[in-house]
Amino acid sequence: MPEQWRNFLDDLPRELPRPRDLGSPSAAEISAKVRPKALMEQDNPAERWVPIPQPVLEWYRRIGRPTPLYRARLLEKRLGTGARVYLKREDVLPTGSFKLNTAIAQAYYAAVEGRTTLVSETGAGQWGMSVALAASMFGLDAEIFMVKCSLDQKPYRRHYMELLGAQVRPSPSDFTAFGRGVLDRRPDHPGSLGTAISDAIEYTLGKDSAAYISGSGVPHVYLHQTLLGLEVQAQLEGLYGEAVGEAGRGDHLVACSGGGSNLCGLIGPYLSARAGGADLRFLAAESTAAPRLTAGRYTYGRADLAGYTPQVLGYSMGADFVPPPVHTAGLRNHHSSAVVSLLRNEGVLDAVAIEERKALEAGRLLLQTEGILVAPESTHALAAAIDVVAEADAQGLEPVVVVLASGSGHLDLQSYSEVLRRP
Amino acid sequence: MPEQWRNFLDDLPRELPRPRDLGSPSAAEISAKVRPKALMEQDNPAERWVPIPQPVLEWYRRIGRPTPLYRARLLEKRLGTGARVYLKREDVLPTGSFKLNTAIAQAYYAAVEGRTTLVSETGAGQWGMSVALAASMFGLDAEIFMVKCSLDQKPYRRHYMELLGAQVRPSPSDFTAFGRGVLDRRPDHPGSLGTAISDAIEYTLGKDSAAYISGSGVPHVYLHQTLLGLEVQAQLEGLYGEAVGEAGRGDHLVACSGGGSNLCGLIGPYLSARAGGADLRFLAAESTAAPRLTAGRYTYGRADLAGYTPQVLGYSMGADFVPPPVHTAGLRNHHSSAVVSLLRNEGVLDAVAIEERKALEAGRLLLQTEGILVAPESTHALAAAIDVVAEADAQGLEPVVVVLASGSGHLDLQSYSEVLRRP
Repeated sequence: MPEQWRNFLDDLPRELPRPRDLGSPSAAEISAKVRPKALMEQDNPAERWVPIPQPVLEWYRRIGRPTPLYRARLLEKRLGTGARVYLKREDVLPTGSFKLNTAIAQAYYAAVEGRTTLVSETGAGQWGMSVALAASMFGLDAEIFMVKCSLDQKPYRRHYMELLGAQVRPSPSDFTAFGRGVLDRRPDHPGSLGTAISDAIEYTLGKDSAAYISGSGVPHVYLHQTLLGLEVQAQLEGLYGEAVGEAGRGDHLVACSGGGSNLCGLIGPYLSARAGGADLRFLAAESTAAPRLTAGRYTYGRADLAGYTPQVLGYSMGADFVPPPVHTAGLRNHHSSAVVSLLRNEGVLDAVAIEERKALEAGRLLLQTEGILVAPESTHALAAAIDVVAEADAQGLEPVVVVLASGSGHLDLQSYSEVLRRP
Repeated sequence: MPEQWRNFLDDLPRELPRPRDLGSPSAAEISAKVRPKALMEQDNPAERWVPIPQPVLEWYRRIGRPTPLYRARLLEKRLGTGARVYLKREDVLPTGSFKLNTAIAQAYYAAVEGRTTLVSETGAGQWGMSVALAASMFGLDAEIFMVKCSLDQKPYRRHYMELLGAQVRPSPSDFTAFGRGVLDRRPDHPGSLGTAISDAIEYTLGKDSAAYISGSGVPHVYLHQTLLGLEVQAQLEGLYGEAVGEAGRGDHLVACSGGGSNLCGLIGPYLSARAGGADLRFLAAESTAAPRLTAGRYTYGRADLAGYTPQVLGYSMGADFVPPPVHTAGLRNHHSSAVVSLLRNEGVLDAVAIEERKALEAGRLLLQTEGILVAPESTHALAAAIDVVAEADAQGLEPVVVVLASGSGHLDLQSYSEVLRRP
């Protein structure tokens, strides 16, 4: 297993544009107060390799890292392709999502600094489950603001968090001035990731013992997720005992993109090789419900509604954009992160928008061939990979295609059922 | 990975009593018609070792066998015990249940015989999920009679089966004369495992291309599940590369017992060692809702209501027994299998009945310490093992305790929540 994370910021084609941060207090001041210091430093580490602390490594081993790199031979056969398709199996992690990788690291740093409570937001609940479990690993409390409509629709994920002792609160929340303001204007507001981030940050500002942590979108999260690409590199070279025989390959790396962390975690460790001339293609699969990278504008914007985070240059649907109510909650962000957007704008990253139904049909095909049920978010990457494979076949190529299976679909069976039943 | 199953029938302390089979047609005649021949032969194999067919082995490898044998050090620490507690992790299988092991084997034999449809019953849906997936692996159709009240309460498992193309029908069913009779007498009958088995067998009798298969209770299922004990033996000896250093140990083997297949699969391969004088204790954890082994009568009875299966000598709550409505559907059987009951009656097998709440509290403790969420059925074994450990500590012993984690609890989070919320 990798014992260092890879800082890939110096491998970006150019420097990240500075965020716009004009509030008072500024977003940087707010971050400095609510986030653990070690994590702020990891937004721009001094070195290219950052050692993974021993207690974090121990938990990584315990939860089953390295996760399998699985050759989907039966899917290949069904597709009739000459491509070799590998799934990086984050779906087997105990919370059913790759988000646990960074949650463990962030909980560790918060605990080391003496914070006693983790505060965060969650949409459909995958990140919340990982926060709740990571908090429990390091003896911390967890308070999680969950988008109100998801809280009602996704009871299983809520139960999981509560079983671990986490407090789960609906957002918009009457625990914050921001949330009370939203509810005053619209008492039945269904909540959004934007309201939940705002609630969580404001709540943390009022509680000295608490740390606010993010599940995606910021460089320290991407740093932790570089585990994904590092493991894939090692696994394709057969370093963990498997005789894979794909040393140096990985022609196409495909991941879905919401906040960008599974994508950047996968491709980050490959950026320097691509810059050095390696023939690698990186592909982001987004949802047609929020097609920022394929149809958005490159402009300044932010993730939260209250203005507690800085404005960053990124591909955006606009701050007022309300995505159609798709089931794939993890891909409904209205603004892409600075890193993902830079890679896209510089032509390093390709992107494709996938319809939810097409995505879930690809997920069903994977279940029916390989017996593996991945999350709706992951099915977008899978559907995009199937298109890559078809194109390669048409050209007579036999590439290695790595697809990030970012999560498990067992708690999303309702979504699969509803979408695939539609006439 | 083991490449042979272990036939342990000759290792039983005495021969299995003959079933009572007085119907016309007899249950044996019905079985001969509805079940694949190879499986009937595996109810009493000629040899002690039965080779696992190559296509079955391939699927076992693909789904992640051997499953991990996990040392629960953090649970040990929380308990303050000197015992070494190992979990056999069947919860990581793709259907979230050990039932997949026999489903794959049975689907294979059905396909080899030219049957095109698998028919079976399911209670809460774990077995049904495994049948649906195994059918898909070998290109078969699946038709599954699901206990009606579970069909409504457990939509996720139904969605999974349907995603794989399985037909899921409520039992009592109007597809059979038996089911129509039940519904005539009581249109709102909630169904039970007894009605579902009857529906499934009668339905198969009317369909030549179909094979009826069982998830538990019969010797060929136990044979397939001996994978569990064989893998544990090899893993304790460090044969798969782990340096475990417990060669020849496994002082306590603990499993929950409903139909008996995870229990017999775990202890079956150890029976000859115990008969040879090894100091091994086998413990069955049942539910206080159906305490057959601890409070039942040793008498003849059967699993189905229509009389399509033979009467076997076993510990029973009586044919008319209706268990209280606990969430742990897998432990609500009214009659114990012939094999489990014989082992119990001969003093080879210890048994303890566990309250559902105590069981789920043990499950919560495991989640909070190790980050592992097991099925409600498995928590009964866990709670029993925690009691074993406490007793050993009181006596100054430091045993090796192996607990079978028969399934995952992610689709049972509602049950955890409802039971643990009660005042």
